[in-house]
Amino acid sequence: MTSTAFILVAPQMGENIGAAARVMANFGLADLRLVAPRDGWPNPAAETMSAGALPDVVAVTVFETVEQAIADCGFVLATTARPRGMEKPVYGAAEAVARIRAVPVRAGVLFGAERAGLPNEAVALADAILSFPVAAGFASLNLAQAVALVAHAIVEAGDSGPPPAFEGVDAPAPRHELIAMMEHFEAELDRAGFFFPPEKRAPMAQNLRNAFTRAGWTSQEVSTFRGAIKALALGRGKARVSRPE
Amino acid sequence: MTSTAFILVAPQMGENIGAAARVMANFGLADLRLVAPRDGWPNPAAETMSAGALPDVVAVTVFETVEQAIADCGFVLATTARPRGMEKPVYGAAEAVARIRAVPVRAGVLFGAERAGLPNEAVALADAILSFPVAAGFASLNLAQAVALVAHAIVEAGDSGPPPAFEGVDAPAPRHELIAMMEHFEAELDRAGFFFPPEKRAPMAQNLRNAFTRAGWTSQEVSTFRGAIKALALGRGKARVSRPE
Repeated sequence: MTSTAFILVAPQMGENIGAAARVMANFGLADLRLVAPRDGWPNPAAETMSAGALPDVVAVTVFETVEQAIADCGFVLATTARPRGMEKPVYGAAEAVARIRAVPVRAGVLFGAERAGLPNEAVALADAILSFPVAAGFASLNLAQAVALVAHAIVEAGDSGPPPAFEGVDAPAPRHELIAMMEHFEAELDRAGFFFPPEKRAPMAQNLRNAFTRAGWTSQEVSTFRGAIKALALGRGKARVSRPE
Repeated sequence: MTSTAFILVAPQMGENIGAAARVMANFGLADLRLVAPRDGWPNPAAETMSAGALPDVVAVTVFETVEQAIADCGFVLATTARPRGMEKPVYGAAEAVARIRAVPVRAGVLFGAERAGLPNEAVALADAILSFPVAAGFASLNLAQAVALVAHAIVEAGDSGPPPAFEGVDAPAPRHELIAMMEHFEAELDRAGFFFPPEKRAPMAQNLRNAFTRAGWTSQEVSTFRGAIKALALGRGKARVSRPE
């Protein structure tokens, strides 16, 4: 486990960003990433609410896309209370943190915007879903409260002893490798006419991404799979060339 | 374990009360108690921030004193990050909740005001201290964030199986019995001139309260001890009467 990145996707209220930064500082966490914050950055309301955490105690980096924000992460969790119908493991905070601690790579935790939560495309990029045991009729957690629960769980787990040894042989690939692989695959599938009819492209690609991200691919496996995509694409080209028309 | 009471002692900002109520509703908790809220009650800012938890989902009761607010609680935790120099056990959230679940009585969790935290007199009334693993240089948790961490821990523990059986024979006495006992004892000690010099009364009484609250007295034990105080007081009176002057 290296220091965990907290990624707020399209956050709206500066106050929530500031409150999130404050509680990260409370628990000694310093890697806060913002994807397309509504009101830009820096944000005076965020600094005021941060009680001194911003701009110096917690480092903020701004990204345009979720893909960029998690590029260096090898394990990604998506926080959501809503069922998504995605084939991903769902963890509570304690188990999620145990998984974070089990991987020798940087983990990233995605938090959605105040009203809408995380878009499905962002959830599809995550290895697993982190969900809190909220009441069915009152499920909407404040953004900074969700950050607080994860930050506390990380430090609480850290206090309880050394992290468990990593069970796998190789570390998961940084997420940018996996994303590039999926984009490569999807591009070839586009060319092959796989995504048909066109309105089905998004859900079909999402299902694939869910499957890929669940597997904890290593860099070697990513590389191998990309080689396989290339080979298939070339082969299809060859086949088309050699096919009598 | 019956439903746990969350007690905010002298809270200042209505926004924090509302945010606390919201996250209690998120985790299905409904017993919020306010001791001498600065801006009175009801508080429109609290309702706005509660996202619908107030006034209907979470029940709010207002008290003048901490003693009144915890009168029906048999186990009381005081949340604080500062070392208090009090002889009380200190638990993290998970262990604190395990203790709450182990007692077949209502538990109360005390939260201090935004800046000052809990007064020592309130901490002295608690069985134990609940402390979060905050960074030494950035230890001040937002009030509603502290409430969120405890509320989540309670529900998380509830999800992990049935509570452990209560190990003792009898349940702890409701706190009002213990408080009355301590007040009775202190009154007799006042009459006996025990608290001398006068400026030492507060710390001496506090030390006693810490000792008493640590013991998990049952109602029977409280009753027995009060009988002992009475007997000693009567005996001292008798001794004084019979003593040649």
